[in-house]
Amino acid sequence: MISVSEARQRIGQYGHSEKKAALPLLEAGGFTLAETLYAPVDTPPFDQSAMDGYAFAFDSWDGSSSLQVIGELQAGGSSATELRPGQAMRIFTGAPMPAGSDTVVIQEKVRSSGNEITILDDKLVRYSNVRPAGSQTKKGGLLLEDGQWLGPAAVSFLASTGISRVMVYSKPTVSIIITGNELVEPGGLAAEGMVYESNSAGLIAVLQQMGIAPVSVQQVKDDQGPIRQAISKALSSDLIIITGGISTGDYDLVKPALESLSVQEVFHFVQQKPGKPFYFGVAGETLVFALPGNPVAALTCFYEYIAPAICRQTRQDHFKKIVLPLSAGHKKKPGMTHFLKGRIEQGRVTILKDQESYKMNTFALADCLVELEAEKETFEPGELVIITLIH
Amino acid sequence: MISVSEARQRIGQYGHSEKKAALPLLEAGGFTLAETLYAPVDTPPFDQSAMDGYAFAFDSWDGSSSLQVIGELQAGGSSATELRPGQAMRIFTGAPMPAGSDTVVIQEKVRSSGNEITILDDKLVRYSNVRPAGSQTKKGGLLLEDGQWLGPAAVSFLASTGISRVMVYSKPTVSIIITGNELVEPGGLAAEGMVYESNSAGLIAVLQQMGIAPVSVQQVKDDQGPIRQAISKALSSDLIIITGGISTGDYDLVKPALESLSVQEVFHFVQQKPGKPFYFGVAGETLVFALPGNPVAALTCFYEYIAPAICRQTRQDHFKKIVLPLSAGHKKKPGMTHFLKGRIEQGRVTILKDQESYKMNTFALADCLVELEAEKETFEPGELVIITLIH
Repeated sequence: MISVSEARQRIGQYGHSEKKAALPLLEAGGFTLAETLYAPVDTPPFDQSAMDGYAFAFDSWDGSSSLQVIGELQAGGSSATELRPGQAMRIFTGAPMPAGSDTVVIQEKVRSSGNEITILDDKLVRYSNVRPAGSQTKKGGLLLEDGQWLGPAAVSFLASTGISRVMVYSKPTVSIIITGNELVEPGGLAAEGMVYESNSAGLIAVLQQMGIAPVSVQQVKDDQGPIRQAISKALSSDLIIITGGISTGDYDLVKPALESLSVQEVFHFVQQKPGKPFYFGVAGETLVFALPGNPVAALTCFYEYIAPAICRQTRQDHFKKIVLPLSAGHKKKPGMTHFLKGRIEQGRVTILKDQESYKMNTFALADCLVELEAEKETFEPGELVIITLIH
Repeated sequence: MISVSEARQRIGQYGHSEKKAALPLLEAGGFTLAETLYAPVDTPPFDQSAMDGYAFAFDSWDGSSSLQVIGELQAGGSSATELRPGQAMRIFTGAPMPAGSDTVVIQEKVRSSGNEITILDDKLVRYSNVRPAGSQTKKGGLLLEDGQWLGPAAVSFLASTGISRVMVYSKPTVSIIITGNELVEPGGLAAEGMVYESNSAGLIAVLQQMGIAPVSVQQVKDDQGPIRQAISKALSSDLIIITGGISTGDYDLVKPALESLSVQEVFHFVQQKPGKPFYFGVAGETLVFALPGNPVAALTCFYEYIAPAICRQTRQDHFKKIVLPLSAGHKKKPGMTHFLKGRIEQGRVTILKDQESYKMNTFALADCLVELEAEKETFEPGELVIITLIH
């Protein structure tokens, strides 16, 4: 049996396959960029009016004379006419500055009479109200670096430079296998001895939060053949999550099935509560996590071990860890790291009641998991603890 | 022109239609529950062994005699045999306790010889290692209240009680309309005077983060007819987002089009930078937001006004506001609330450079928006400011 930190460290040695994929920009939101991007063009691509007003050449204007308006230029338009000294052009936000102009006076700061305007803006300087070509980003300049999270603004920014396809760190393909003779689908009738299967629902929901839809969800009985078959089918995924059948009882058949398929055990059993029988192995590039069947243990192991492994591949940052003070003291036996359901209120974390690993009611209301060190027995009110944010 | 707080307050008066929908539980992850749920059954549905071991009746055992093992009970099994005093049954985690038993001794704490076991656990008490029927949740008992966020654990919890369908607060249907003669698709060729259209990409990405796919994205020229047609088509949505054409220039045709379609203006122009020409109106139950065409202004208005309006309908909590100290001082002119792109580092927020509303490069790197009060001019290092988290 190994410690929580050793389990984390051993998992951290695997799964750095750095799989990348080219995606249309419109589908890349929420992924992490897997290339450094440079600007294919100047943005704006031309000197652009920033306001509705009149374009003219600042230096050829004497500061008082009126100007003759010789035309109009809308956003999306262009003009072949070059302005001569004493001339101006009506211009709208986003329109290209006509040749022979460098400055825009806004429409609220002119007096106009027929084709003539008089400028009433004594703060005007050369280049006022103009967005110079390349003033956001210059052609060939750095746009975003490898590792940048593609949030909505980053997607919009890349679109503004004309980029329509990007390389991102891929999300892993995930297969789920649920084992247990006693499990029936929610909504079905629970016969004597049967309980509703709930691990797949929780795992599907948490993967969805990470933008991952499992490639398959198989439910099998505690039977060597079907378990072996399900794992064998799942081995083409990047990541397999198995629940149940991983302790040491006579009907815990997952480990022999994994061995028979040459999955290489990295560890089995961790000094933690819940989730002691947690197993991790590898088969080529495939990471295999076998979780206890108790829903609390299964989901806790997901947040504490599987989510970080996925985030290392996708270069993302789900379920951050922070440090907060406890709102009340807590006692536990030494020897095991405890992961307890908690709630954050006014900057402090409260450990909720009903922490048994088969009781999901508390987990449903929790917004964090509180990690309590293995060897420590007494935790004082106000003592700082590491928590994992799960909302 | 109204203040930011008045704009927020006026938007808050609309859009409380409380639309609900019944969803399969497996699709309800990430939604907010729109009903209070009570347990349809006891969970666990029967007294259940919590461990692999042996079931027997505690009170009929003298504390030292060996017990006769008369059978075996797996998870998912059931037994018609009632245990008599002096008898035990081999039992596995999750199996129902056989009639005539109330206690489980774990397999590591017995010495077994043929069909006989001797119990070596002096800490054993009645009901040890048993999960009583209904000990997670009792039939008819409260499961989750209206308004509860359905995270993965809540979904798993409901599944464990056999619930397979739930009422949730619906996500609004959203239509996007992009206006502007100068706009071309990213990836296309930008002719003289044209720029790449990027607002739709940013809006699609941010809506996706909120679990919403727009029902339509229409791109139209600055032309009264097509703008009117696009809005008319979108009026069947719960929410319309229009970008561009909403200022006061000759080619700002969105407002006349809205008026001609009897959309009722709630306000137009807000004392803010960016996003001064921000418009909000209503048409029956439909909320209509018209945003300036500048990508920074458009996305800022989304985070500050549209996202909160959506969250009020869905009862969710995206893009939380928190208070943090500024890492450096800042000066601005009085009169406008400023929303500036920032980054959080070590518990302080830094206002980034390049804040002009047409420059998306800074926004792409920001993880928050910093709100600076309208009338204030000088902000000291360490001064507390409200920020909106956007990562």
